[in-house]
Amino acid sequence: MEYYSGQITKLIEELSRLPGIGAKSAQRLAFHIISMPEEQVDRLASSMTEARRNIRYCKECCTLTDQELCPVCRSAGRDHKTIMVVETPRDYVAYEKTGRYDGVYHVLHGAISPMLGIGPGDIKLKELMQRLQGDVNEVIIATNSSLEGETTAMYISKLIKPTGIKVSRIASGVPVGGDLENIDEVTLLRALEGRIEL
Amino acid sequence: MEYYSGQITKLIEELSRLPGIGAKSAQRLAFHIISMPEEQVDRLASSMTEARRNIRYCKECCTLTDQELCPVCRSAGRDHKTIMVVETPRDYVAYEKTGRYDGVYHVLHGAISPMLGIGPGDIKLKELMQRLQGDVNEVIIATNSSLEGETTAMYISKLIKPTGIKVSRIASGVPVGGDLENIDEVTLLRALEGRIEL
Repeated sequence: MEYYSGQITKLIEELSRLPGIGAKSAQRLAFHIISMPEEQVDRLASSMTEARRNIRYCKECCTLTDQELCPVCRSAGRDHKTIMVVETPRDYVAYEKTGRYDGVYHVLHGAISPMLGIGPGDIKLKELMQRLQGDVNEVIIATNSSLEGETTAMYISKLIKPTGIKVSRIASGVPVGGDLENIDEVTLLRALEGRIEL
Repeated sequence: MEYYSGQITKLIEELSRLPGIGAKSAQRLAFHIISMPEEQVDRLASSMTEARRNIRYCKECCTLTDQELCPVCRSAGRDHKTIMVVETPRDYVAYEKTGRYDGVYHVLHGAISPMLGIGPGDIKLKELMQRLQGDVNEVIIATNSSLEGETTAMYISKLIKPTGIKVSRIASGVPVGGDLENIDEVTLLRALEGRIEL
């Protein structure tokens, strides 16, 4: 049964396919979009189609970009011999925002997950190994500290070790500024195991 | 500082202007949209621009529609002499979903709110009064049971009383302070049945 006119129904349907947007939010968004200035709707719509059409993987690090190389891979000021391996472009951005990492990245677009049937061939691992043929000093593995992230980190480190390239893993432990009492036990234990001498 | 390539940044910016979508969700949505099949992105984008371009007020009841008259106002099977006054098109849909109301609607697009500076001239009240020149038996006021909704209901009932047309208010089976769109159908029906003449 169609309660709205066809085009509103269609818009609500399309919006509710997006992740994290339920039926109610889709409805609210649809009515908002209808009431927005027409130019703004056009801008929103064309930014979607243009991004979808032009965004591709960076030829070097596989992050998403609208040019052949991403800004970091293009930059001459970065240390191209240090590669930080992350799961997603969002993780790349998270480290970029610190403003203190001057190496380059490699985006896997996922993590190995036997549970979800995601194997080493389903992430950008072959591309990473190809980069290691070049002049690389260190690979820093910065996958998430989830089961999948740890599995992936172990897998990659085993793969790289024989090449003689240094492999490291970002430390996991208590977040800076976090209250101990609010932190889960696994993290507390990991922080204890990873303690460093002062 | 731009961490993403231009087109991703632009998409994230446009998405984060939408209500209820913060920086993080905009980022997540943007990456999702980039990974969607191209046809689906095109459908989403065109459903926005088309809805925005073609949606207008129903000539009769002022709800949003892509035709001259909304489905209810077009229908010969409805009782066009009974008009239910609601605040928004979503409230219209909420009552339509009960499947048990056979009158027509009038959508005010808001409620009188001295606090927000919204007066009787800012909602579709003139249009309602014009409809009452025709053959109307009853006006059922189904504005929200919020302060604004009650104020609007009182205002409208005072306006209509002199015309001799019956005016009723949906019963307060609707919880005080609740938005119609979030209330279950049984409660909505109970409120309709228990309406009292004002």
